[in-house]
Amino acid sequence: MELLYLDELSHGLANLSMFPYFDMAHYIVSVMALREQPGALEVSRASPLACWFSSMLYCFGGAVLSGIMLAEPPVAPLSNGTGVLLASIVWYLIFYCPKDVVYSSAALLPLRLVLSGMKEVTRTWKVLGGVTQARQKYKDSLLVMIAIGWARGAGGGLISNFEQLVRGVWKPETNELLKMSYPTKITLIGAVLFTLQQTHYLPVQKHHLMLVYTIFIVVNKSRIMLTGSSSSPFATIESVLYKTLFAGHSPYSALTGEAKEACINNDNAKREAKENGSSRSPSAAVEGRSSSLRAKEESTSSDTKDSKKIN
Amino acid sequence: MELLYLDELSHGLANLSMFPYFDMAHYIVSVMALREQPGALEVSRASPLACWFSSMLYCFGGAVLSGIMLAEPPVAPLSNGTGVLLASIVWYLIFYCPKDVVYSSAALLPLRLVLSGMKEVTRTWKVLGGVTQARQKYKDSLLVMIAIGWARGAGGGLISNFEQLVRGVWKPETNELLKMSYPTKITLIGAVLFTLQQTHYLPVQKHHLMLVYTIFIVVNKSRIMLTGSSSSPFATIESVLYKTLFAGHSPYSALTGEAKEACINNDNAKREAKENGSSRSPSAAVEGRSSSLRAKEESTSSDTKDSKKIN
Amino acid sequence: MELLYLDELSHGLANLSMFPYFDMAHYIVSVMALREQPGALEVSRASPLACWFSSMLYCFGGAVLSGIMLAEPPVAPLSNGTGVLLASIVWYLIFYCPKDVVYSSAALLPLRLVLSGMKEVTRTWKVLGGVTQARQKYKDSLLVMIAIGWARGAGGGLISNFEQLVRGVWKPETNELLKMSYPTKITLIGAVLFTLQQTHYLPVQKHHLMLVYTIFIVVNKSRIMLTGSSSSPFATIESVLYKTLFAGHSPYSALTGEAKEACINNDNAKREAKENGSSRSPSAAVEGRSSSLRAKEESTSSDTKDSKKIN
Repeated sequence: MELLYLDELSHGLANLSMFPYFDMAHYIVSVMALREQPGALEVSRASPLACWFSSMLYCFGGAVLSGIMLAEPPVAPLSNGTGVLLASIVWYLIFYCPKDVVYSSAALLPLRLVLSGMKEVTRTWKVLGGVTQARQKYKDSLLVMIAIGWARGAGGGLISNFEQLVRGVWKPETNELLKMSYPTKITLIGAVLFTLQQTHYLPVQKHHLMLVYTIFIVVNKSRIMLTGSSSSPFATIESVLYKTLFAGHSPYSALTGEAKEACINNDNAKREAKENGSSRSPSAAVEGRSSSLRAKEESTSSDTKDSKKIN
Repeated sequence: MELLYLDELSHGLANLSMFPYFDMAHYIVSVMALREQPGALEVSRASPLACWFSSMLYCFGGAVLSGIMLAEPPVAPLSNGTGVLLASIVWYLIFYCPKDVVYSSAALLPLRLVLSGMKEVTRTWKVLGGVTQARQKYKDSLLVMIAIGWARGAGGGLISNFEQLVRGVWKPETNELLKMSYPTKITLIGAVLFTLQQTHYLPVQKHHLMLVYTIFIVVNKSRIMLTGSSSSPFATIESVLYKTLFAGHSPYSALTGEAKEACINNDNAKREAKENGSSRSPSAAVEGRSSSLRAKEESTSSDTKDSKKIN
Repeated sequence: MELLYLDELSHGLANLSMFPYFDMAHYIVSVMALREQPGALEVSRASPLACWFSSMLYCFGGAVLSGIMLAEPPVAPLSNGTGVLLASIVWYLIFYCPKDVVYSSAALLPLRLVLSGMKEVTRTWKVLGGVTQARQKYKDSLLVMIAIGWARGAGGGLISNFEQLVRGVWKPETNELLKMSYPTKITLIGAVLFTLQQTHYLPVQKHHLMLVYTIFIVVNKSRIMLTGSSSSPFATIESVLYKTLFAGHSPYSALTGEAKEACINNDNAKREAKENGSSRSPSAAVEGRSSSLRAKEESTSSDTKDSKKIN
């Protein structure tokens, strides 16, 4: 009986339409995330157009990125008139609403929790959409299907460097590949699962996987929001995998002690610069920078012929 | 009688061929604009190839950008052999002509005025070309048509960040979306007008709109060049629109006074750095930078849970 | 007799399959080049995924870049399952092999010499592949054929700015167009030659040109590796061409002496900063930077109407 009920539930979920309520929740949560970026409010005053364009990249980043990767027009999301209209209204209300009513109420924890949960639901649809779209062009290529599913589901994060550029911010030292955030990670796992399901390597039915994955990401997101903990549910697996595969022997440890020490000093300087108040930080940042320069030069200057094997 | 004459004139204009004279004027004015960029002459000595590539992006930037946006080969402008040949000759003469004859004469005000006027005429054709091209792919999407028309007409400016990168210059803190220049603005207006005309929302005939728009941009450009004023003809409308739509209530004004003050100080420091001579500016720039850092840190450090609603 | 033998040899070479041995050599040499970049080992520890993605860009950069330029899916190289698998195995062994056996042995001069020679052989195939691919789309456009051939053969270098961004490194002040490296240069020459051959402007047979070009690049690469000299075989031709075409008269020399002096000082400061040890360089770099700022401001501040002709 219970299994039958679950099956019906998963069928119901699979036939759920994202438009308009879930899409709307996605737009609201995305634009709120943009607004909470440092400097975003200033940009919204200085140039509403740049702010709007940034918002659209937050809302439709996945479609833009997967479009580029499949050589389809990146301008296509703009042709979805209703979606853009909805997202634009959300953008306007969140940034410019009189007395800031909309943002203030949406930022209340209970409402935000519901909206974030609904946004997570759209992730399942996006990942699945990306995987099936890639499958039409590249029948047997698992990697392409994973890549497109991932890009569609986590596009906003993956193109964040270029989205920031629209707002005049440039942080080359960080990106989602170097340091994956939780949504990017969970989307990657989803893309792998749906790809395996679509190519029948994973012997489950599509709507069952959709149900399980959706419940998992919604529950997990709620847990993170409520407890404020940022510990990943995969931390243990990741750590084991990492230790087995990538840290067995490390040629890195063979680096000259000198350069390594400089690296550590440098990291400390950076951390200090972050933790310290406003008064000290600029000088600390300069110090950090100079010691990083020094470290780099040391490692390059020691990169003579003899040490080629080591470095 | 006069109306008939105007109608004939607009028909004549609409049938005007841009090739070769107007295209040539566009190439000359574009390459001259590149040459007047700080550092461009040094690049032209250090790497003629990078300089040529930059020039091509100045001349064909609109076609490249609209090509990327519609998933058409960005390399396509290179296949227009005659155009590239003409542009390359112009590039060579302006950068490397013996005794600098070509640049010196083209920079004389009367000649420059004529060339700039002719370049503006090509803008009408480019915007219209972009709008009609987008219309073939996306029948009913006004936004796509505006975007492609704008990209085609103002491409050089919109991709300036990446054009600069070719020359080894990187200014992430500024772009045409954050602070629109006059040509970008006027092209956007043109793209909107031609899109409305093409979709019959604007009940005028194409050649009439072409005549009016062309006269407006040519006259306006000449005025700007002659008076040296950079006041936009839309300043009043813009200001009214801005105040109505985007400044009604400002959550920005709710920012902690402290951070705001720092911002203002920072802006002043920047302005000072710009206005002051060479001797003081580097230190002022550093000051400006550090106070901006401080402002950022203040705003992030105050971004604790309590103040989430405010910031 | 000897000619007959050469003809047979060239036929044999033209029918050589790149897969799997030559491709493998290409992957090994490319990933080793990545590993020798400053900071790459740190990235390989911090984020294996970013490291893998960087490696793929090193191995398939040409295919990605030429794909983008022809509006074909840049994700296509991923669909070549065997190639990606091979490259991934190479990536894993070179970065994470226990006791670093693979890298240490591949870095031994004799083996590295053979591998590098084999990698050079793949260049011929890639350039020719790019030229013929471009020819199918753009029958008569020499420029497009050269551009695509060049991009396919030297893609890794041309997109290095963006490849570095994956690893959190950003060096806008340099790129392969501003300062071409030897492989980029030789690939450009190859692209020109194969384009001329394909369009019958160069009256030689394809397999003959392949033989000659392959021998030339392999011999040259070996010479560079053995002697350690970085002198280009085209230095004389380049210098003559440059002097004839681009330095006849220099409007650059008409720059205000003041600014030029500042430039030279600045260059000296940079050179000093590079040559000096770790202790002095940061301050020298700052000095260099500030004098460069000063020089820039001088040249812009002197860019008033009167001096427009000069600057």
